[in-house]
Amino acid sequence: MAAPYIIQIKPEDNVAITVAATPAGTQVAPGVVTACEIPQAHKVALKPIGKGEAVVRYGVVLGYANTDVPCGGWINEHMLDLPTPPDVMAMQYGDDIRTDLPKAPRTTFEGYENPNGGYAGIRNILGIMTTVQCVAGVLSVAVERIRRELLPKYPNVDDVVALNHPYGCGVAIDAPDAVVPIRSLKNLMHHPNFGGEIMVVSLGCEKLAPERIMTPQELTPENLIVLQDYNGFGAMVEAILKMAQTKLERLNRRRRVTLPLSRLCIGMQCGGSDAFSGLTANPSAGYASDLLVGAGATVLFSEVTEVRDGVYLLARRTPDAPTCKRLAQEMVWYDDYLAKGGVDRSANTTPGNKKGGLSNIVEKAMGSIAKSGTAPIVQVLSPGEVPTRSGLIYAATPASDIVCGPCQLASGIALQVFMTGRGTPYGLAAAPVIKVCSRTDMKEKWPDLIDINAGTIATGDATIEQVGTELFHFILDVASGVKQPWSEKWRLFNDLCIFNPAPIT
Amino acid sequence: MAAPYIIQIKPEDNVAITVAATPAGTQVAPGVVTACEIPQAHKVALKPIGKGEAVVRYGVVLGYANTDVPCGGWINEHMLDLPTPPDVMAMQYGDDIRTDLPKAPRTTFEGYENPNGGYAGIRNILGIMTTVQCVAGVLSVAVERIRRELLPKYPNVDDVVALNHPYGCGVAIDAPDAVVPIRSLKNLMHHPNFGGEIMVVSLGCEKLAPERIMTPQELTPENLIVLQDYNGFGAMVEAILKMAQTKLERLNRRRRVTLPLSRLCIGMQCGGSDAFSGLTANPSAGYASDLLVGAGATVLFSEVTEVRDGVYLLARRTPDAPTCKRLAQEMVWYDDYLAKGGVDRSANTTPGNKKGGLSNIVEKAMGSIAKSGTAPIVQVLSPGEVPTRSGLIYAATPASDIVCGPCQLASGIALQVFMTGRGTPYGLAAAPVIKVCSRTDMKEKWPDLIDINAGTIATGDATIEQVGTELFHFILDVASGVKQPWSEKWRLFNDLCIFNPAPIT
Repeated sequence: MAAPYIIQIKPEDNVAITVAATPAGTQVAPGVVTACEIPQAHKVALKPIGKGEAVVRYGVVLGYANTDVPCGGWINEHMLDLPTPPDVMAMQYGDDIRTDLPKAPRTTFEGYENPNGGYAGIRNILGIMTTVQCVAGVLSVAVERIRRELLPKYPNVDDVVALNHPYGCGVAIDAPDAVVPIRSLKNLMHHPNFGGEIMVVSLGCEKLAPERIMTPQELTPENLIVLQDYNGFGAMVEAILKMAQTKLERLNRRRRVTLPLSRLCIGMQCGGSDAFSGLTANPSAGYASDLLVGAGATVLFSEVTEVRDGVYLLARRTPDAPTCKRLAQEMVWYDDYLAKGGVDRSANTTPGNKKGGLSNIVEKAMGSIAKSGTAPIVQVLSPGEVPTRSGLIYAATPASDIVCGPCQLASGIALQVFMTGRGTPYGLAAAPVIKVCSRTDMKEKWPDLIDINAGTIATGDATIEQVGTELFHFILDVASGVKQPWSEKWRLFNDLCIFNPAPIT
Repeated sequence: MAAPYIIQIKPEDNVAITVAATPAGTQVAPGVVTACEIPQAHKVALKPIGKGEAVVRYGVVLGYANTDVPCGGWINEHMLDLPTPPDVMAMQYGDDIRTDLPKAPRTTFEGYENPNGGYAGIRNILGIMTTVQCVAGVLSVAVERIRRELLPKYPNVDDVVALNHPYGCGVAIDAPDAVVPIRSLKNLMHHPNFGGEIMVVSLGCEKLAPERIMTPQELTPENLIVLQDYNGFGAMVEAILKMAQTKLERLNRRRRVTLPLSRLCIGMQCGGSDAFSGLTANPSAGYASDLLVGAGATVLFSEVTEVRDGVYLLARRTPDAPTCKRLAQEMVWYDDYLAKGGVDRSANTTPGNKKGGLSNIVEKAMGSIAKSGTAPIVQVLSPGEVPTRSGLIYAATPASDIVCGPCQLASGIALQVFMTGRGTPYGLAAAPVIKVCSRTDMKEKWPDLIDINAGTIATGDATIEQVGTELFHFILDVASGVKQPWSEKWRLFNDLCIFNPAPIT
């Protein structure tokens, strides 16, 4: 079939987006002729929109036109005034609870069970936690030696990862918001891909003393190295290698077993979004999420500023008042956090977003939440918290890709699915990251970075369900160790940018 | 001569600190017998101190006793109530301007001149700036290849450093405080050790667009790689290697020349401090600073919360009202920054500080400012600003070692001198870090990490002037490429933890 000129989402929308850059004078729909050249993925008015009138996409008000726009006119970020954000205190819950999720074509995967049960690992990694950035230099030298000298002896272990992060000292450790980074690091140590092995390198005088993240049972010489206890650099490195060897021996005995999807927890994130993201990549991820959740898996989605303007739609999918209230509280917390810094949610959108046709945070949010599919939202987590329920979960985190990643890791995602419009080589060392792009030209441009192309949805060559099912299978193949996404293959690993909303000292 | 039991700093002090752990019943001074065992570096009362009375060390009030302390009693962090911080608006300036600084035994060093003049480089490094964390994975892979495949061909180039940092996107780029990280990255790119070569790797859709840190003259295809412009991962890496080769060829032609000390800019920092730091390591660094400044060099010292309680002493060393006012403004800014997070300067001290005898932030600050020596303070900088004057400069930064380091780097320090009591393996990839320890047992414990032992001052085996002069020579030997400090030799490099006081989105 011929590719459409534009894509309109809801019948009540008074704008649609262009599938490709469209010259002036093109008839893109009956009675709609472009009044000027319109860039790819940008909005065209489907009827005249007067100054002050609502601009509607996804059936929601993106904002109000600050100028008269003719039918066929271009609406970009300069022509929209931001609406006030939804009042989170008055949100409805429970009136959009879907129970007929699509049936998954597979219900098991091959994963690693962990000593304490819970979610399974999908990689077998020695994760070495640090209590403070001060030790990063020594640990990095040691990890290079572990990788070169020890890892080849343990063929069942995939990797060794130094969990270096900027937190630990020189921070206001008792500030109200310090709970966020401390909880994140504590939970990260127990990541399912680390097989329950605890290995912590500390300095000895830092504020994040080991007992702040380790239980009394964990706090033993078998699990903790305090650099100040050693006689110099050489001794420190030897101690790290020795402990690593013991842990690697145990990890090497792990084997994959067939497990139900209820033992799988994954994360969804989008970054470098464009106006196609909400049409192609994110809805296909949402469909994969519905398949996973329907089969018992746990799926996390996040990014507070990118759900803020559509949060009332999420609230309707929470089953009860307490879950709805938790959702509201996370929004309020983030509103306050931004206000303290003199900004609001509108600080979210990037030059790339705008170039990609996303005029403001409302439009971005509507596309962003599409990745959550349609399942009920059974739990809401604060940044870095671990789920206690199975199913679709809203894990409140910053929208920053490189901060959302570590937050979701702390929550225990075994892998992350990352939707992108403009393209980013982002990756995580502790969990594979699968890339889904929103446009076919992105996949053509980055064939060795993009795993799944959802751009075929925009051109009418595939349906959301088809791409979503392809993604579902790819997720389970990656989880089962049968496939590697590109970022894992190339070892494209970002720094562990822990979220610390508290001051540094 | 016999080592003393205790060290008293000013005659008016009513406490002194123990040189070593001291058993109960030891006569440590005429009429002063320890009432209990007192740990090393902790305070002993030289006379009875009643509840509510001032505890005085360095001639200043550390705080007020919250219990009666007998003569010979131990005063630790639990017994002191914090005084109110000095009022910065009423500070005197100009009444402690020293003009007779000690005469330096050397007045030149061997450094690298830079195209735009200014401070000289002391290492010859290809520094590759990034505009956003998203590119870190690709750049790290490329840098590994540059180091392996290209660097050996350019024997006059010391290293290649990827300037990966957490900033660049997912941040409130127009927040009032965003000026701090943006300025820091912009200035870091021009670091004297990078030889004036500009090489920037960006993604293409980030908030920190290249033009925010590059001038129109710098913004050319010869200096900037935009990953989104390349056809995939392989092409990105090849482009980075190709640009690196051009830059390495130019850097390889640099040669050291004999330069006056006015072309040298160094930084002073302390971390993991104990009660000896203010007696041994920091005063000897202060003496080295006086020698350097006297010979025309520029010396930066920093750490707002660690000067806050003694800032009036620094104000007296500023020559005029505007400089004094800038000093006050930096204090007020940081007070406000901490208050927004619900804390104050007392959040600075660490468990290690307290174990090391530093009872509170006042005591820590008095030791910390000792590293500034006695020279006039000719300029005050906001975090990441570049000096425009020569001499001793107060560069306001967080006290966090790993954040102060990048701030001082952005200000252009060619090397850093780092004083430590408890010991830290901290280091920077872009500039050598020299370690000075406060206690002899620290040097004995870490012989392959500590460069200079100032502990001999506490035991009476050396004077502050002797150790300070030794440090002065070591600084110039490291600057001239004749010597390497341990952290450089072992390549102990911390992450580039840029200071971002603004919110992330």
